[in-house]
Amino acid sequence: METARIEDIWDVIVVGAGFAGLKAAFELKKAGKQVLVLEARDRVGGRSKAGEIHGQTIDLGGQWVGPQQKLLLAQAKELGVKTYSQFTTGASLVSRDGSVQSYHSNIPKLPIISLLEIARLERRWNKEAKTLPVGKPWLAEKAMRWDAETVESWILKNVRTHAAQDFIRAIVGALFCCNASQLSYLFFLEYFRQGQGLEVLISTKGGAQQDKFVGGAWQISKLIADQLQDHLILNSPVLAIEQDVDHVRVDCQTRSFKAKKMIIATPPVLASRIDYVPALPIKREKLLQSMAMGAVIKVHLAYAKAFWREQQFNGAVVSTDRAVSIVFDQSPEDQNHGVLLGLIEGDHAIALSALDVETRRQRVIADITYYFGQQAAHPLEYIEQDWLTEEWSQGGYVAHMPPGVMTSYGDCIREPFGHIHWAGTETATEWSGYLDGALQSGIRAAKEIINTY
Amino acid sequence: METARIEDIWDVIVVGAGFAGLKAAFELKKAGKQVLVLEARDRVGGRSKAGEIHGQTIDLGGQWVGPQQKLLLAQAKELGVKTYSQFTTGASLVSRDGSVQSYHSNIPKLPIISLLEIARLERRWNKEAKTLPVGKPWLAEKAMRWDAETVESWILKNVRTHAAQDFIRAIVGALFCCNASQLSYLFFLEYFRQGQGLEVLISTKGGAQQDKFVGGAWQISKLIADQLQDHLILNSPVLAIEQDVDHVRVDCQTRSFKAKKMIIATPPVLASRIDYVPALPIKREKLLQSMAMGAVIKVHLAYAKAFWREQQFNGAVVSTDRAVSIVFDQSPEDQNHGVLLGLIEGDHAIALSALDVETRRQRVIADITYYFGQQAAHPLEYIEQDWLTEEWSQGGYVAHMPPGVMTSYGDCIREPFGHIHWAGTETATEWSGYLDGALQSGIRAAKEIINTY
Repeated sequence: METARIEDIWDVIVVGAGFAGLKAAFELKKAGKQVLVLEARDRVGGRSKAGEIHGQTIDLGGQWVGPQQKLLLAQAKELGVKTYSQFTTGASLVSRDGSVQSYHSNIPKLPIISLLEIARLERRWNKEAKTLPVGKPWLAEKAMRWDAETVESWILKNVRTHAAQDFIRAIVGALFCCNASQLSYLFFLEYFRQGQGLEVLISTKGGAQQDKFVGGAWQISKLIADQLQDHLILNSPVLAIEQDVDHVRVDCQTRSFKAKKMIIATPPVLASRIDYVPALPIKREKLLQSMAMGAVIKVHLAYAKAFWREQQFNGAVVSTDRAVSIVFDQSPEDQNHGVLLGLIEGDHAIALSALDVETRRQRVIADITYYFGQQAAHPLEYIEQDWLTEEWSQGGYVAHMPPGVMTSYGDCIREPFGHIHWAGTETATEWSGYLDGALQSGIRAAKEIINTY
Repeated sequence: METARIEDIWDVIVVGAGFAGLKAAFELKKAGKQVLVLEARDRVGGRSKAGEIHGQTIDLGGQWVGPQQKLLLAQAKELGVKTYSQFTTGASLVSRDGSVQSYHSNIPKLPIISLLEIARLERRWNKEAKTLPVGKPWLAEKAMRWDAETVESWILKNVRTHAAQDFIRAIVGALFCCNASQLSYLFFLEYFRQGQGLEVLISTKGGAQQDKFVGGAWQISKLIADQLQDHLILNSPVLAIEQDVDHVRVDCQTRSFKAKKMIIATPPVLASRIDYVPALPIKREKLLQSMAMGAVIKVHLAYAKAFWREQQFNGAVVSTDRAVSIVFDQSPEDQNHGVLLGLIEGDHAIALSALDVETRRQRVIADITYYFGQQAAHPLEYIEQDWLTEEWSQGGYVAHMPPGVMTSYGDCIREPFGHIHWAGTETATEWSGYLDGALQSGIRAAKEIINTY
């Protein structure tokens, strides 16, 4: 590869212009450092992304914020991005075992014995999650035991009612975009600790899906990026990183850059594909290779009006038997028209990703029509975002750990390697997997550098 | 990247000159095809590799052959490579819970109740393995259930005695070079089916470690490669593969090649790092990303004589409490001197890989001395092969599947993608993980191409 002449030595190079990388760069700039951000895509935002349906700007990626996510709320406030509530007036729907029912709480309508069981399990998860040392879940007394278990094997051993089993599987799909059989029970508990329990994680009011950003969450990354001015280069995938005693050289396809320190703020699998000299420590390499990104396709459907509201439905669906497993109302605030968003996760996403767009569109509309009736059969517009085919995400929302990964490799997740520090929502200690966790990780990585040189 | 002029259109390009790729190329050549093999390393052999200790040629990688491995035996015979028996005269040693004991069977000396339990478990595994359809374990009646379980969670649920639990963990280490918590129980059963049961897999006499090749197993790859003459290019990592209707273009750093068909015969993680246009099907991408290579360091120690033989030991050790968990006699047939080989696996390998070579050497010698006494304390020579730091292997012996991988993505493991066919020991249906399985996969992939055009 031809490398351009290295003209400047930056204080810090940040790889990845998602929420984590941008926040890190911003904090470093504020501390007087010369920072350069390199982004593989032709846009900033990472797993947040702007889209449009029927004239309305929408989030094709991460979008919600809960009252517990104080970093994200503060960031939005600082940038002048306002929030509004997720629409929740009316009944939600649950689709399972071939029928659709409505309900009015955070937990779908299930047989009473299953609801009692879920309440008991929730108490148990909260109790177990409390035993995980903050930032060091691998040190919990029962860490080895929990990390040997998949959530699915845990379900089969500990959950008695069919409906509760399916409910937990649906939660895993909704939170991690993978199968319960692919997920470490220790990782599941750590997520609950970070997200303050099941109720907060899955709820709208009072929970992680309470509010949305007027104009979209993607704006936050855009507005931070604007402040970095010309210290951000798009379309520049990093191919190789070479460290010596004093510096790190970062090679893109046609240019190289040099810095004293750097922060890698990409999804784990992408970080593992960079060519490092010297090579990454084996444990770090194993960690990056082992963390699998979830599988998710986000769809939006626009209608002339939000007809479900007239039927006293809030537009929310949880499904355990159809491909579109989560649905929310995404209608514009002025209610000029109606919009539903749907999430297709895990194996459903992988199967639907392989179809042509027209077949996939029909499958999605069939599911939405199954939930809401014939009025849903002819959307004015259909927009889809397949995160699986995004080369620089490799899936979404977040990378998870299969069993035996956290206890074997997890303790190096934030450990710098020479001049390289690590950010990204996967490295957060609160709200990992969320935009808020991405911000936290950026702040932490920036601090590591500011404090040490 | 500068690409050279594409001068020829090959019938088939094979990526990877390990046993699988070389065998595939050889079969295609025999069928009259014009074949080109591209190899990233400066040598052929893949996970087999020549080394030398004290003037004796040794295998730094795969080396054994069992009477069931008929393809490998036939291949060696055809090439004139002779076999000889693994030395087994005398007692083996087992190191567990801080003490070393000798024993004379395939199963280490354990409390009788644990031995009875292991015998019972072995019958169960054989029975369960028999229910796996050949080449399609994901279709077994209980596939979902078994694939949701790690071997460790299965142990904790099904194995009562401490010694039997440790024994199974040691087997997982010895066969897969990973922790029991990282391995799908379904994958574990499939391995047993492919390897004809526990007894065959772990035994010397009558089993997979019965014989070795005079001069080393690596010669087999060398001798096949010799027959391909100048149709093999070393030092040529494949960076990108682009397919159109009729052809596939393969880009290396400075040259490109064109063919009608191709076979990729690399470890899964390396195949996942090639840049494909069009992109790999998501399911294939997920499969390649999810299969984790085991972690192994192979060491050899040379002594003036095989002193353990004089003490009526055969040189074999199985350990559940030290880093060097497997030891075998590797003395030359003429017995001019003595050689022991040791295997360090899983987390032990990852920990020792991070040390400097002198500290690692001392740790290894300390373990060998712990097993065999002070006579082992001063080897004449110490040779190590860390497969974790081999860029073009990324570990060894074989990639395994964590839970939920086989049932979600496994069914595409041998499914061609356009002009691309897949080989490598991981794709074998008998003796996957072994040199024999590599040969089988090469023959099968070559046949797919020969039969279809």
